[in-house]
Amino acid sequence: MRAPPSDLPQITAEILARIGERRPRVHCITNAVAQTLTPNLLLAVGAVPSMTASLDEIGEFVARADALLVNLGTLEPQRRRVIKIAVKQANERGIKWVLDPVFIDRSRPRAELAKQLIDFHPAAVRLNRAEFMGLAGTDPESGALARYALDHLTVIGLTGAIDLVGDGRRLAAIENGHPLMQKVSALGCAGSALVAACLAVETDAWIAVAAGLLALGVAGEIAAKRARGPGSFAVEILDALASLDRKVLIERGRVA
Amino acid sequence: MRAPPSDLPQITAEILARIGERRPRVHCITNAVAQTLTPNLLLAVGAVPSMTASLDEIGEFVARADALLVNLGTLEPQRRRVIKIAVKQANERGIKWVLDPVFIDRSRPRAELAKQLIDFHPAAVRLNRAEFMGLAGTDPESGALARYALDHLTVIGLTGAIDLVGDGRRLAAIENGHPLMQKVSALGCAGSALVAACLAVETDAWIAVAAGLLALGVAGEIAAKRARGPGSFAVEILDALASLDRKVLIERGRVA
Amino acid sequence: MRAPPSDLPQITAEILARIGERRPRVHCITNAVAQTLTPNLLLAVGAVPSMTASLDEIGEFVARADALLVNLGTLEPQRRRVIKIAVKQANERGIKWVLDPVFIDRSRPRAELAKQLIDFHPAAVRLNRAEFMGLAGTDPESGALARYALDHLTVIGLTGAIDLVGDGRRLAAIENGHPLMQKVSALGCAGSALVAACLAVETDAWIAVAAGLLALGVAGEIAAKRARGPGSFAVEILDALASLDRKVLIERGRVA
Repeated sequence: MRAPPSDLPQITAEILARIGERRPRVHCITNAVAQTLTPNLLLAVGAVPSMTASLDEIGEFVARADALLVNLGTLEPQRRRVIKIAVKQANERGIKWVLDPVFIDRSRPRAELAKQLIDFHPAAVRLNRAEFMGLAGTDPESGALARYALDHLTVIGLTGAIDLVGDGRRLAAIENGHPLMQKVSALGCAGSALVAACLAVETDAWIAVAAGLLALGVAGEIAAKRARGPGSFAVEILDALASLDRKVLIERGRVA
Repeated sequence: MRAPPSDLPQITAEILARIGERRPRVHCITNAVAQTLTPNLLLAVGAVPSMTASLDEIGEFVARADALLVNLGTLEPQRRRVIKIAVKQANERGIKWVLDPVFIDRSRPRAELAKQLIDFHPAAVRLNRAEFMGLAGTDPESGALARYALDHLTVIGLTGAIDLVGDGRRLAAIENGHPLMQKVSALGCAGSALVAACLAVETDAWIAVAAGLLALGVAGEIAAKRARGPGSFAVEILDALASLDRKVLIERGRVA
Repeated sequence: MRAPPSDLPQITAEILARIGERRPRVHCITNAVAQTLTPNLLLAVGAVPSMTASLDEIGEFVARADALLVNLGTLEPQRRRVIKIAVKQANERGIKWVLDPVFIDRSRPRAELAKQLIDFHPAAVRLNRAEFMGLAGTDPESGALARYALDHLTVIGLTGAIDLVGDGRRLAAIENGHPLMQKVSALGCAGSALVAACLAVETDAWIAVAAGLLALGVAGEIAAKRARGPGSFAVEILDALASLDRKVLIERGRVA
């Protein structure tokens, strides 16, 4: 298994700079809880969010997007149909998309949909350990993460105390982050949108996913130093993301 | 009418400690405006929120929840059906649930639904004066609150300048809180979710409701001291809730 | 073309004072992203928001509202029907309403609906340059804004680096604001709700729109001085709006 490049923090800074210059459009089909934080996080790094999940609009928005996020949280029946249309269109047009299978460990209909969507080849899947088990039927340990990524031709971004990013041949372990990140609802969902923005400007999907999670983790650490609790932390992490620079990424990035 | 125990602030601290230890799952069926603040407030005290109102998922989420919140704000037709399924299932499984009949004084369909739901015995109803009148057809004064609670075997948590919590035999008046609490949309809705979290760890529903409202009121006072306006107040109240301790609850709690 | 009164900042202060005294009810039919910021911004200035888009409730809420906001963002099919009912009822009752045709330049179904709604005579339309072109089929330059306003008997509030407010006979250019305002999702949508609140207490619609945009722009400048990034800016602009006074409006207001 190849390790990540030692200059991943520097590469992350370059990817963030490209997002700021190119202002990629990221279309987000996401859950009710994530409707505010997701576009605000994208705006903080310079991407341009759009958020509709309306059946008669989705085609036009996906067609002009540079990346797509599909998040399965609070999954209403009508959103399933919209998701399938969006994913097919993204694939036809070569638009990369990210799957965030929120809580599939707690909802069978979502787990089934997630398994169907995997066959449409998301560029990346961002999930936690319980969600990975819901998707792959096994713990991510001892090579299962790599095998799943290889079998499904995708990049797995497994978030937790340490984030693991694998494409089957390469594996990065990102040690940045802070426990307060678990105290802001939909922060993981918004992080998946950040990953989508990185995919819009970086052709190596494994690098893009690692960069997105590294940026979020470093921003989380900076925010935690300034915050007095989960309320101010949610504010500070947006400020930190908007001003992340090469210096702080290199200083703080801990990748193995 | 029995007064509340003089050590309610201390009991509140114990209930918050139990929430932090047991991390109860609180499923929230709530309105569009409350989708962000509600889970953030639950996370701030250590509870685990889930938010879906999808017909094909609600069963699984309620089945594994430790408490349920039913909030009638921005009531779309499809949410009515979901609510009835959720409430029946909660009752079958002995899961306590809270009714928050938002704005039933302004919407006849909501008022009708609220009256139907009362017959399914919520453990608590959290509402303001106008909503109480919409539900009970009378002012909460001169014993009407107690009679309504007794008749419907529930606890009424009536919020206002002074919060009143009654189960028909006992009545607590909580004098904590701050006018800025009226300036944050959906803070009352999120407070009902906090009450649900308290019910998940405290068998005496009257104590649980009083504890939830006392905690929110004290956090509101602390937040108001630090805030410069409604924007920073909304941030500070989450920080304050996350760090409420026995000392500050005993110092500030004003219960009669 | 008549210029705005030189005392527009003073008039704005008076309009804000009337909102604080009369507490107008502003009913908002708006998009998923704007559900939190919109009511919080209205509460910050003293207005009373309501947010339902439910078919069986909309009549009662519009009937008792003092102004209506119709925002076309994330336009689900069922919201179209609700919007038409709401607009007809507002017109029958003489309730002024604001149209915010979000992203109609990117969605044909929204553009068509916006054009239909214009015939129902909104008191004001709040949009950006791309949206104006989607609506009017032409750039807002060289008198097109004025012609469109005159032809459709409405006030156009065109926001950008400089906000233009025209009713066909009068034109105001408001130079207040800050680039961070582009970094908070749904801030423009919430600004349209503020315009609706101004219309509720000011009979001259052109003055009302100019006052709403001036207040938001000045609050944005104050917030930018205190903010460290887009996260804290979103908090600070609510605090700034809640404490805007005559003095600061006169000091900072730049209207031509």
